[in-house]
Amino acid sequence: MKTLAEPVSRLIEELSRLPGIGPKTASRLTFYLLRSPKDQSEALAKAIMDVKQKIIFCSHCYNITESDPCLICTASQRDQTKVCVVEEPLDVLAIERAQQYNGLYHVLHGAISPVEGIGPEDLKIRELLIRIQREPIEEIILATNPNLEGEATAMYIAKLIVPAGVRVTRLARGLPMGGDLEYADEITLARAFEGRRDM
Amino acid sequence: MKTLAEPVSRLIEELSRLPGIGPKTASRLTFYLLRSPKDQSEALAKAIMDVKQKIIFCSHCYNITESDPCLICTASQRDQTKVCVVEEPLDVLAIERAQQYNGLYHVLHGAISPVEGIGPEDLKIRELLIRIQREPIEEIILATNPNLEGEATAMYIAKLIVPAGVRVTRLARGLPMGGDLEYADEITLARAFEGRRDM
Repeated sequence: MKTLAEPVSRLIEELSRLPGIGPKTASRLTFYLLRSPKDQSEALAKAIMDVKQKIIFCSHCYNITESDPCLICTASQRDQTKVCVVEEPLDVLAIERAQQYNGLYHVLHGAISPVEGIGPEDLKIRELLIRIQREPIEEIILATNPNLEGEATAMYIAKLIVPAGVRVTRLARGLPMGGDLEYADEITLARAFEGRRDM
Repeated sequence: MKTLAEPVSRLIEELSRLPGIGPKTASRLTFYLLRSPKDQSEALAKAIMDVKQKIIFCSHCYNITESDPCLICTASQRDQTKVCVVEEPLDVLAIERAQQYNGLYHVLHGAISPVEGIGPEDLKIRELLIRIQREPIEEIILATNPNLEGEATAMYIAKLIVPAGVRVTRLARGLPMGGDLEYADEITLARAFEGRRDM
């Protein structure tokens, strides 16, 4: 491919390293950027640099933040007795969007996955246990993903916390709103029956 | 979304402006970059800047290049009597990979598309006509895409060139190699019959 200028092939290569972006998409994006206004490419490059330079992890809850501790940890009107444990910063966003929860968070940065070689020591679990000792926490809400890794992580954490006398809960499993019963998988249906409530 | 730091939301926004990347993919990429080594993000940002700073369009064939005129236009061993007309720089790459063609190129930067408001004056068609007058061109090979816009563009250009006495050809249409006859669409099959050859 001697006709492909080095800066072009390098950008294709760098874009290909992103998850879910193959060589074809990377080429398409590269040629899009080549043709787009200079402002747009510069804004994108700057945004990438800024995110690495300005964003840190909160030393308390390990969510992403510009200031440490983060805005959620320092919000006095939030319920300091509840901590919602999630896998990723994106999960915090999703829960905040739902506007249902007003406690604190703890971001694990992953889930236990023997297949990917991620053990409990790779997650912020020790940091969670320290928080439970030091803070007036009454309830830990385990909001890891409802899949194999998330369930395993929740069970692992629950076992560690229950002896500490803190209430440990897990988000309800059931039929998703707006979903169609006939398309629900067996496990979801089974959990929906288990968790049924009186009306 | 007050919990989302400004640099994070800005990167999500900038990534969402790229074609084929929605807000969900943009979030995923942003959090990937947040967690990836600093080197990788810096290399990506630099590659984006470099491509805009170092890559120009050849003033002759309008392909992308680092030097003007480009390496293909200045390659004396290439056949100067043939010009292959394509829509995009990526098409040049694809044809070069096939190692079948040894002439020059002319990149239109698009195809005629009334729906998208792209007319002949938005493409490098006038520049092609000037080349035909000035250069010893004997054959124009129209290699625009085999779809509605590409066909319309090819027909439009052919009408303009034929009076100049230059041979105008179009890439063969037929069954793609490695394809399955039973999955070929009607138009491809019809063209494959039309273009059948004696063995």
